[in-house]
Amino acid sequence: MISSRDEVTRTILSAKVRKGIKWADVAKAIGLSKEWTTAGCLGQMTFTKAQAEIIGNLFGLSDEAVAWLQIAPYKGSLPTAVPTDPLIYRWYEVVNVYGSTIKELIHEEFGDGIMSAIDFSLDIQREADPKGDRVNVVLSGKFLPYKSY
Amino acid sequence: MISSRDEVTRTILSAKVRKGIKWADVAKAIGLSKEWTTAGCLGQMTFTKAQAEIIGNLFGLSDEAVAWLQIAPYKGSLPTAVPTDPLIYRWYEVVNVYGSTIKELIHEEFGDGIMSAIDFSLDIQREADPKGDRVNVVLSGKFLPYKSY
Amino acid sequence: MISSRDEVTRTILSAKVRKGIKWADVAKAIGLSKEWTTAGCLGQMTFTKAQAEIIGNLFGLSDEAVAWLQIAPYKGSLPTAVPTDPLIYRWYEVVNVYGSTIKELIHEEFGDGIMSAIDFSLDIQREADPKGDRVNVVLSGKFLPYKSY
Amino acid sequence: MISSRDEVTRTILSAKVRKGIKWADVAKAIGLSKEWTTAGCLGQMTFTKAQAEIIGNLFGLSDEAVAWLQIAPYKGSLPTAVPTDPLIYRWYEVVNVYGSTIKELIHEEFGDGIMSAIDFSLDIQREADPKGDRVNVVLSGKFLPYKSY
Amino acid sequence: MISSRDEVTRTILSAKVRKGIKWADVAKAIGLSKEWTTAGCLGQMTFTKAQAEIIGNLFGLSDEAVAWLQIAPYKGSLPTAVPTDPLIYRWYEVVNVYGSTIKELIHEEFGDGIMSAIDFSLDIQREADPKGDRVNVVLSGKFLPYKSY
Amino acid sequence: MISSRDEVTRTILSAKVRKGIKWADVAKAIGLSKEWTTAGCLGQMTFTKAQAEIIGNLFGLSDEAVAWLQIAPYKGSLPTAVPTDPLIYRWYEVVNVYGSTIKELIHEEFGDGIMSAIDFSLDIQREADPKGDRVNVVLSGKFLPYKSY
Amino acid sequence: MISSRDEVTRTILSAKVRKGIKWADVAKAIGLSKEWTTAGCLGQMTFTKAQAEIIGNLFGLSDEAVAWLQIAPYKGSLPTAVPTDPLIYRWYEVVNVYGSTIKELIHEEFGDGIMSAIDFSLDIQREADPKGDRVNVVLSGKFLPYKSY
Amino acid sequence: MISSRDEVTRTILSAKVRKGIKWADVAKAIGLSKEWTTAGCLGQMTFTKAQAEIIGNLFGLSDEAVAWLQIAPYKGSLPTAVPTDPLIYRWYEVVNVYGSTIKELIHEEFGDGIMSAIDFSLDIQREADPKGDRVNVVLSGKFLPYKSY
Amino acid sequence: MISSRDEVTRTILSAKVRKGIKWADVAKAIGLSKEWTTAGCLGQMTFTKAQAEIIGNLFGLSDEAVAWLQIAPYKGSLPTAVPTDPLIYRWYEVVNVYGSTIKELIHEEFGDGIMSAIDFSLDIQREADPKGDRVNVVLSGKFLPYKSY
Amino acid sequence: MISSRDEVTRTILSAKVRKGIKWADVAKAIGLSKEWTTAGCLGQMTFTKAQAEIIGNLFGLSDEAVAWLQIAPYKGSLPTAVPTDPLIYRWYEVVNVYGSTIKELIHEEFGDGIMSAIDFSLDIQREADPKGDRVNVVLSGKFLPYKSY
Repeated sequence: MISSRDEVTRTILSAKVRKGIKWADVAKAIGLSKEWTTAGCLGQMTFTKAQAEIIGNLFGLSDEAVAWLQIAPYKGSLPTAVPTDPLIYRWYEVVNVYGSTIKELIHEEFGDGIMSAIDFSLDIQREADPKGDRVNVVLSGKFLPYKSY
Repeated sequence: MISSRDEVTRTILSAKVRKGIKWADVAKAIGLSKEWTTAGCLGQMTFTKAQAEIIGNLFGLSDEAVAWLQIAPYKGSLPTAVPTDPLIYRWYEVVNVYGSTIKELIHEEFGDGIMSAIDFSLDIQREADPKGDRVNVVLSGKFLPYKSY
Repeated sequence: MISSRDEVTRTILSAKVRKGIKWADVAKAIGLSKEWTTAGCLGQMTFTKAQAEIIGNLFGLSDEAVAWLQIAPYKGSLPTAVPTDPLIYRWYEVVNVYGSTIKELIHEEFGDGIMSAIDFSLDIQREADPKGDRVNVVLSGKFLPYKSY
Repeated sequence: MISSRDEVTRTILSAKVRKGIKWADVAKAIGLSKEWTTAGCLGQMTFTKAQAEIIGNLFGLSDEAVAWLQIAPYKGSLPTAVPTDPLIYRWYEVVNVYGSTIKELIHEEFGDGIMSAIDFSLDIQREADPKGDRVNVVLSGKFLPYKSY
Repeated sequence: MISSRDEVTRTILSAKVRKGIKWADVAKAIGLSKEWTTAGCLGQMTFTKAQAEIIGNLFGLSDEAVAWLQIAPYKGSLPTAVPTDPLIYRWYEVVNVYGSTIKELIHEEFGDGIMSAIDFSLDIQREADPKGDRVNVVLSGKFLPYKSY
Repeated sequence: MISSRDEVTRTILSAKVRKGIKWADVAKAIGLSKEWTTAGCLGQMTFTKAQAEIIGNLFGLSDEAVAWLQIAPYKGSLPTAVPTDPLIYRWYEVVNVYGSTIKELIHEEFGDGIMSAIDFSLDIQREADPKGDRVNVVLSGKFLPYKSY
Repeated sequence: MISSRDEVTRTILSAKVRKGIKWADVAKAIGLSKEWTTAGCLGQMTFTKAQAEIIGNLFGLSDEAVAWLQIAPYKGSLPTAVPTDPLIYRWYEVVNVYGSTIKELIHEEFGDGIMSAIDFSLDIQREADPKGDRVNVVLSGKFLPYKSY
Repeated sequence: MISSRDEVTRTILSAKVRKGIKWADVAKAIGLSKEWTTAGCLGQMTFTKAQAEIIGNLFGLSDEAVAWLQIAPYKGSLPTAVPTDPLIYRWYEVVNVYGSTIKELIHEEFGDGIMSAIDFSLDIQREADPKGDRVNVVLSGKFLPYKSY
Repeated sequence: MISSRDEVTRTILSAKVRKGIKWADVAKAIGLSKEWTTAGCLGQMTFTKAQAEIIGNLFGLSDEAVAWLQIAPYKGSLPTAVPTDPLIYRWYEVVNVYGSTIKELIHEEFGDGIMSAIDFSLDIQREADPKGDRVNVVLSGKFLPYKSY
Repeated sequence: MISSRDEVTRTILSAKVRKGIKWADVAKAIGLSKEWTTAGCLGQMTFTKAQAEIIGNLFGLSDEAVAWLQIAPYKGSLPTAVPTDPLIYRWYEVVNVYGSTIKELIHEEFGDGIMSAIDFSLDIQREADPKGDRVNVVLSGKFLPYKSY
């Protein structure tokens, strides 16, 4: 009996280590980006029936787990409000140090509104650099203006 | 008497509204990116003497304020641990929803370590789109591996 | 010297009490809904130049305050994460008690995604009722689906 | 042995996924709105004996679980004070951005008091819209005035 | 210029000490209970015009302060979520130690619902007792049932 | 093996639902008030050997559980600092809204000190009322003065 | 205009440094222990008229400040929930490390109840010790038993 | 398999209730104070091999549990930052109300530094008193001065 | 089935106590410092295949556990934001008391930037001292400057 | 009128920027380490009369401010529990990532006890390194064992 998506995520993580599967391989198998696929496997996105079945085969999931993958999950992937993991903390630090800068520059360019985190995509790439390789990340989100009514 | 960088930030914000200055103009005046310049004016970066004097002229700052601009500030630009402003919250949401994904994919590509938030740059651009313009943001940070010793 | 939108909000609240102005009158003066107008006067929305000048006249604001009204503010109108005011707490309670219900029913009808709080409107009406009048509130927000990429 | 209503909620969620039941069908079976029925199944409301037995049949619950459904639960359906799920967060954001507006407008219309979250109903509907369908939600609560004594 | 009810509360407290006024005398002057009157003077209730003027005379308030007394305040009288004052903490402790007891017994007697804190009164009395005087407090609140719909 | 009083509380709650026992009946069986008896069964009070055995018989507890009932427990019956259950929250709200009032009036009557939450009793009664029944609660606590030394 | 006891405390602290007064001297002047006297001067206790006047003379307080000293204050002397000052933190650490020990041993000796923090005294002494002097502190509080009713 | 000292503490507490052992008896068996012994059994101190074996015999612990008793534990015995148990809270209240007093008086006597909570002892005694028995507690800690370097 | 690195850490801790292994021995077996090795065994670092297999042999781990040791973990080794363990708290206290000092002096010497906690090493040594042995700790981290762009 | 050490710290910081003084120069002037001197100027240590006067001359402080420098301050130099400044956060991260490692290794070497943060010194040095300079920090604290009694 499975009573939350978290249990499916834990089963996937366990199988991934045991079987030595890579996220990039999962993404290729369902024909989507590695970013969205990983987010889905970590319990943040909803898969279609076809996608869920491919993933079920890869990780050896039960039919019940495959059914859970097709249901919109309670999102949020971090155990604490301020993340303790150094890699993820650096992102939180970017929000803290650059948050007001991002706000000022988007408003200067677009006016009042937000950059969507739903109509949104994420792309992570390695850039070779003789002084030490870099991680390049592109975030792209639709601008949604506040309207008066 | 000025006793913290925050007071200088508030003076700059007040002058910016009164004089109708744009961040992009400040950036052009000191010859750097609008992202880094705005972060500096909002109290997150340290200016050189030459930069600080140009900024002081633009905003009409006192000599004491110009001196404060050249000193490394206590960073952090948000009033609460979980931001309440919708634009900034969407970024926090990205960290929350995609945080574990970003972590998994960087580790899959680079091994254990972090993406630096110090040797780091930020670039914000408008992308025209018939279904609604998009905000595109590029984050680029050096990969720093954990080493054993 | 004004260095934050909060100061303008406090000036408006003070003038409103002194002059006995009603929010509905402000809304009429700028030709918009009372909900959006009040949110704007309380520092949550950005006014156009024309609207800001009308509001400046009504409340007797300085030119600097009128300039601040035209700039996207740092949003968030409550002093604590869990509100202490009984009226506002009832709304937080609705999110707490009905939150998972709202989530389940919107996902059952629309699939995975959110109800926008930006492309959004709010309407508050009195409904006469012999057993005690009721407050009826309509929230209308565009559905934004998560898309795979 | 069941020692809290939460365990019954988890059993219902698990059976719902396994059996592919829809909340709207449960509501039809007990003859009430889908909003109240879902809140009840998620552990926020108390069912009558007749309702609890119908629900027990639908989800295949034990007699003990059916007994728990008839007892007033410890309410609250969210795991954190500030919700991390993007759909539910948008509602929290509405309370944060519009909270003081709602307060001002209800007081302007009704005087000092609250909008009840107990003598209260919730209605969620899809509104077709060529620019993207909308979620419309009506909240209706009795106004309860503070009285002096 | 007064921009919040808190400022009026602080002025009242200051005048009360300077002039040696008792809450019981204020209550008598406006013809209401000492409990409701004190709550009002401490910024938790809304006075009528007549009551506000009497209070203004007693404490020597400005016309602007008298106007603020007639407006529904942002309620909540304690500076921290967990009170540090020993007298008030004992009440918080009662909620902590007896909270689930109160819940069980009210539900056993009345069914699912709440005891109103709005249609509510409070009465505080001294009971002489040779083993040490007692504080007797009566709380009386209307029962509001949850209804299905 | 039982290693905390919480486990005994959960066993009692489970048996109470299965057997349909009322708190008032437990109170009658041990000859004390329903308020104190319920608090004890919920893990907040210590029973004598005789009381614990009667309760053990009523709920079918093991000898080990009966032994735990006779030991002073770690008190505190609520899962979060700010309660999420609407009935219990109304009490927390009373502390928040009326806290400073209670403090002022007890000090005006008794001087500096506290109302004990230990040498304390609680009484909950239904008062029939044509406009809706009321919950009446009497709290009685010994006054304990601060003394100088 | 003084509107809280905190302002009186700050005035006392400022005068104490300027005039080089010792707490022990204040205690001698009003004929009480240095522990209780210091707590009173720091805003935690209520003075009689005679005591307040002596203290007013010593520190050069206004009549209004002397009046505030005679009123029961909102107690709590620390700026954060977890104290940052190392000396005070050691006491918090004692509560953390020894808290359950203190509880077990007092219950073993006295039964269920508490050690009063109101009918309570505190005595701090230096004990000379060749290996380093020791701070000896005696806390003495009346035992208050929970009673059944 | 035991993976934390907490599990050993829970086993000891369970055995203590089942077997009716008193902390004072455990202390006598290992020839140390009841305060330190109880702290050790509750997982706050490290036992020697000989002490651990005596305790293992008294409570019927496994060899693995006896090994855990000899390892320095992660200390901290309370489940929440602000304790909910009334007995322990009174100690937290003492820190809150008297904290700045303790600090001022220790500094007045000793200069800058702290009272050690490591080179520290605790002694709890009953003092008979016709007006109600008292709990007397002596805390003795070495003074550790800050030194300049 | 193992679904998180935490489970591996708990297995290692349990085996360490049962088998009486020392961290220094583990470090010697894999030929690295005791500091880095202990951090790795406690779930904060990633081992190579060869290191993980040596560790697996020492502690008797399953193949699945050995696989988990080779994957970058979610870091953060403390159960609470403010540590309750006295030894670890002293380090947190150093950050609190000396934090701004460290910041000022590093900026005075190096300019704006940080001391890396990734390109970082830690060395803990005992220094014999007749007045009581000392713990000497050396932290060495690369300086990473903020650069303008 | 100065009523807290914080005000003196703010005055020192302001004068330091205006006059371009370096911490190393202050340290030289009073003949102590730059680490301890900076901590003292930032309000964390107590100066002797002679030291305070030298510092008063350097920064142009009033006699009252010089008196405050000679009194043990309420320590704690950071505005939030989790520091937002990246430099200081890296230290907090070290406590988080290496905290349990530090604990295990000190206990393995010294037994149960702590490393003092009072009888403690701090030394910060630049180490030139062709791959980027390093910050080297030495922390040295006396080991204080827990003793049984």
